[in-house]
Amino acid sequence: MNIIEELHKRIEEQNLWDKKISLKRNEYLKVAGTIETNLFYIISGSLKISLHDDREEYIIRFGYKNNFLTALDSFFTEKPSEFYIQAIKKTELKVISKQNYFNFINQDADLKQLWNLILQQLILQQMEREKDILISSPKERYNRVLQRSPQLFQEIPNKYIASYLRMSPETLSRLKKS
Amino acid sequence: MNIIEELHKRIEEQNLWDKKISLKRNEYLKVAGTIETNLFYIISGSLKISLHDDREEYIIRFGYKNNFLTALDSFFTEKPSEFYIQAIKKTELKVISKQNYFNFINQDADLKQLWNLILQQLILQQMEREKDILISSPKERYNRVLQRSPQLFQEIPNKYIASYLRMSPETLSRLKKS
Repeated sequence: MNIIEELHKRIEEQNLWDKKISLKRNEYLKVAGTIETNLFYIISGSLKISLHDDREEYIIRFGYKNNFLTALDSFFTEKPSEFYIQAIKKTELKVISKQNYFNFINQDADLKQLWNLILQQLILQQMEREKDILISSPKERYNRVLQRSPQLFQEIPNKYIASYLRMSPETLSRLKKS
Repeated sequence: MNIIEELHKRIEEQNLWDKKISLKRNEYLKVAGTIETNLFYIISGSLKISLHDDREEYIIRFGYKNNFLTALDSFFTEKPSEFYIQAIKKTELKVISKQNYFNFINQDADLKQLWNLILQQLILQQMEREKDILISSPKERYNRVLQRSPQLFQEIPNKYIASYLRMSPETLSRLKKS
């Protein structure tokens, strides 16, 4: 069992979820400028996390089933987030508040260690993402992400993957065929 | 006192450093493909962390005095790192092995909490860095980093800051004057 499944199982066993929520396709879970102190677990569906500026939307992460998701900037700092989180299709989520989550984590050393490993994994994933963005060849960017996250290409429509990979949908289609 | 100073003070109090080392200007602390299981504290000087591919060097971080530094990918996974770490000027470092470091951290709950906060801070810094790279306007990229890390502009030569900011040295000079 991986550490994400382990964390989910432990929360489930103690029945700590505050509620379940449903999002329609294109519905926002979160808009920039608001505070987010919930952690979400995706039962079904998929979402995208993005930044917006005057010019464009920058998709920085996806969430899909059996994974956790939140606006991590706000979840850690309790200040307004810069991120938008939007459902790509109909999505079902379980919700746990930050307070309940950390009461749970802090109850035993094993759980603290598990959370620690998850933070480490997040840092490693962010380093991979940084490399993905820096590498100038679209083909290399595509190959790296395909190898690392094959699930992405099953769950997420092309146009969003293209944005995430910083290339046009046409370039992505060409690379997928080659 | 910030959490980095706190961590340094606690290691210092227990006299846990394995050794001190000196690097000449341009000397490598670390080349890609090798394992790094030491954590370094910079007494004086500065360093750059970079990725190389066939085409170019991508500077992803700087280290300067009173900060910790390592090849974090390898430090966590104990697999070969993808990073180069090179001294920008004459640099003095204190060294603690991963094993000694985690023996130290695991000895008390406060230290575990401190390490946890440092991991959180790293994640937030990486999110800022991801935004820095994505934003397409060089002026905005410059302003964001200037606001966040004024120390960078005192410690690090222009040509390296330009590489870190993904712009030409000429563009950076122009932005600094404007």
